[in-house]
Amino acid sequence: MKKSPLAPAGFPAMPPVDGVRLATASCGIKYKGRTDLCLIAFDPGSSIAGVLTRSKTASAPVEWCRARLPRGRVRAIVVNSGNANAFTGKKGTASVDRVVKAAAESLDCRRGEVFVASTGVIGEALPDGLVIKELARLPRKLDPLPWQAAAEAIMTTDTFPKGAVRQTEIAGQAVTLCGIAKGSGMIAPDMATMLAFAATDARLPPAVLQRLLRQSADQSFNCITVDGDTSTSDTLLLAASGKAKHPRITDAADPRLKPFKAALQDLLCDLAQQVVRDGEGASKFVTITVGGAASRAAARRIGLAIGNSPLVKTAIAGEDANWGRIVMAVGKSGERADRDRLAIQIGGIAVAARGEAVPGYDEAPVAAHMKGATIDIQVDVGIGRGRATVWTCDLTHGYISINADYRS
Amino acid sequence: MKKSPLAPAGFPAMPPVDGVRLATASCGIKYKGRTDLCLIAFDPGSSIAGVLTRSKTASAPVEWCRARLPRGRVRAIVVNSGNANAFTGKKGTASVDRVVKAAAESLDCRRGEVFVASTGVIGEALPDGLVIKELARLPRKLDPLPWQAAAEAIMTTDTFPKGAVRQTEIAGQAVTLCGIAKGSGMIAPDMATMLAFAATDARLPPAVLQRLLRQSADQSFNCITVDGDTSTSDTLLLAASGKAKHPRITDAADPRLKPFKAALQDLLCDLAQQVVRDGEGASKFVTITVGGAASRAAARRIGLAIGNSPLVKTAIAGEDANWGRIVMAVGKSGERADRDRLAIQIGGIAVAARGEAVPGYDEAPVAAHMKGATIDIQVDVGIGRGRATVWTCDLTHGYISINADYRS
Repeated sequence: MKKSPLAPAGFPAMPPVDGVRLATASCGIKYKGRTDLCLIAFDPGSSIAGVLTRSKTASAPVEWCRARLPRGRVRAIVVNSGNANAFTGKKGTASVDRVVKAAAESLDCRRGEVFVASTGVIGEALPDGLVIKELARLPRKLDPLPWQAAAEAIMTTDTFPKGAVRQTEIAGQAVTLCGIAKGSGMIAPDMATMLAFAATDARLPPAVLQRLLRQSADQSFNCITVDGDTSTSDTLLLAASGKAKHPRITDAADPRLKPFKAALQDLLCDLAQQVVRDGEGASKFVTITVGGAASRAAARRIGLAIGNSPLVKTAIAGEDANWGRIVMAVGKSGERADRDRLAIQIGGIAVAARGEAVPGYDEAPVAAHMKGATIDIQVDVGIGRGRATVWTCDLTHGYISINADYRS
Repeated sequence: MKKSPLAPAGFPAMPPVDGVRLATASCGIKYKGRTDLCLIAFDPGSSIAGVLTRSKTASAPVEWCRARLPRGRVRAIVVNSGNANAFTGKKGTASVDRVVKAAAESLDCRRGEVFVASTGVIGEALPDGLVIKELARLPRKLDPLPWQAAAEAIMTTDTFPKGAVRQTEIAGQAVTLCGIAKGSGMIAPDMATMLAFAATDARLPPAVLQRLLRQSADQSFNCITVDGDTSTSDTLLLAASGKAKHPRITDAADPRLKPFKAALQDLLCDLAQQVVRDGEGASKFVTITVGGAASRAAARRIGLAIGNSPLVKTAIAGEDANWGRIVMAVGKSGERADRDRLAIQIGGIAVAARGEAVPGYDEAPVAAHMKGATIDIQVDVGIGRGRATVWTCDLTHGYISINADYRS
């Protein structure tokens, strides 16, 4: 698979996070000649938070994580690619149990401190024996640095590994945030086929971590869409080792968390945007900003209606500034909008205002903008003050080729 | 544009409906060398009912119809193609006023008895002068027979004209139902870019007609999807001339209406399915039947989640019996489903049951079914007794070609 034309220049230089180590292996679950297993280990005392798919047909690993998150303690995250262990019935649950048991024994921790995620084919039994065999060996290979190797091991149809790092502070003490993600199709709000794992050395109890993660996910991963399809397996986990020197903070509203919150959201936005940049067949990265909506949630729904519209996405692929289709998508969102106050800008140029085309607007800069790889659409729906930004990509022949041929 | 491979063999032989006459003209609104205006005229005393788009950015003609439907009286329906008169601000409303005035003068009726619909480009002012000029001449051309000419005049990206006829009875007296429709992209529930006009000689007051139309639309036009995009202009109108010999019926629940109800729903299903068969780029006609849901509405939402999923639609285009994507789509619908009781049949062959793949099912007949032009998917979600059927088409390179190049 050719690397996406929207990929960043390279994988970022990612530093160690104190108390966090990684290792990868090739189990041969489905792929040949590449890694497909990743273990992330955390020192004792680490907290964890998570946001999981809302799919009603969630995979066995998602169900395991959902049941363990309330305790909020983590020693290991085990991730495999090549098989999603989804729609595998009781066999799938048994596979998770065996993998968790092996990881807990291997790392000498409780089973409830092991989190799992699987991505790949749906409906085939996970050959967990292959995973378990490697789990016995992996702890010896753990190292603080191989973030890129971890990002590569969790890839499926991704064309590039996705990582991000942010350095911040809490109460004047340095704090690091590192994250990796995978995903390129079946990407939609509510955490599409998307896996993301972030780790920090911050010292935060699970409840605080969970609150911060939920807020940040709502403005990052839940604001992207590739094809509107939500996966059975979406998992975003954030672990905190507590090794940083700042005092323990027990209230998510503590003002000392402000820089950390901003860094976390920035990190998750970076990862989420990389997922969109690897959207199947994508040739354009599209930022849709909606203002003037009844609320932030309404603005996001309008933005997603635009970002999920096949007609808008194909117009962008065709480099056609077809704002009529944007009007259509605003209308179908079901959210309040004032047709006669609706305004649309493309590439910063007003093309529609007060419910009709801007008479005689200069089409040349708009046409030039549509030819670029980065498209900006701004919509004001003329009702209130709700604002949101949504990221998506175009819908091309590449998406059809990938998905009409890929046999899951 | 090449005729859809899923098109019916030909246009049906459509009889006159007593009290209903049609005429068409070429105004030159956008297209050259074809008709683009259709007038359907009704004798005095005719009733009308309608179902209109729920888009929040509805077109000026839709707003006109919405305001006039409660009175339920009709003498004329004026339809143009080539320009949707949508997102045209106050100019759009003024255009509708002028067209309605011209039609009312031309037919010597009240303005409130004239209904209008427009389809085509969004955001450009309707050159209503061209329409008005033809409206002065059209009444002389009115004739009971030219249903096919009417169906052709309202086409936009359609590759074939769409018509249907049903003969039924009310209280033992013969009743005829004739209908035409257009639409091929921007097709989704809540009445996508779809125009449909049906006429009958039944003798039914507007309230009864409205009730019957709403029920039938919910199980026909609101059960189809091509691309999930809802248009600003969707309009379904049903007029009744009252010329049939049966006694006037004033209650929609009257048992004597049973055959008429069945015929109406059958007619609308026929037209709706023709719209799907003309779906942009469609190569397969897909029937999705969902059973075992919490309610009929839940079953329909699950069916539409499957029918709108780009991953399901591209798998069908690729002739891949990828039931994992169907599981995913059930999960994302948000409706209750029992993952461990979910069962899926493709072409009548059980491929998944009790939450996992049917061990060793025979792939050969399933693969053969996927190669056909008509695909049947049955899903049982294992919760209740709600059932619904949804119709859609596959998502192909043809859709991308049409929509990435079509400049609206």
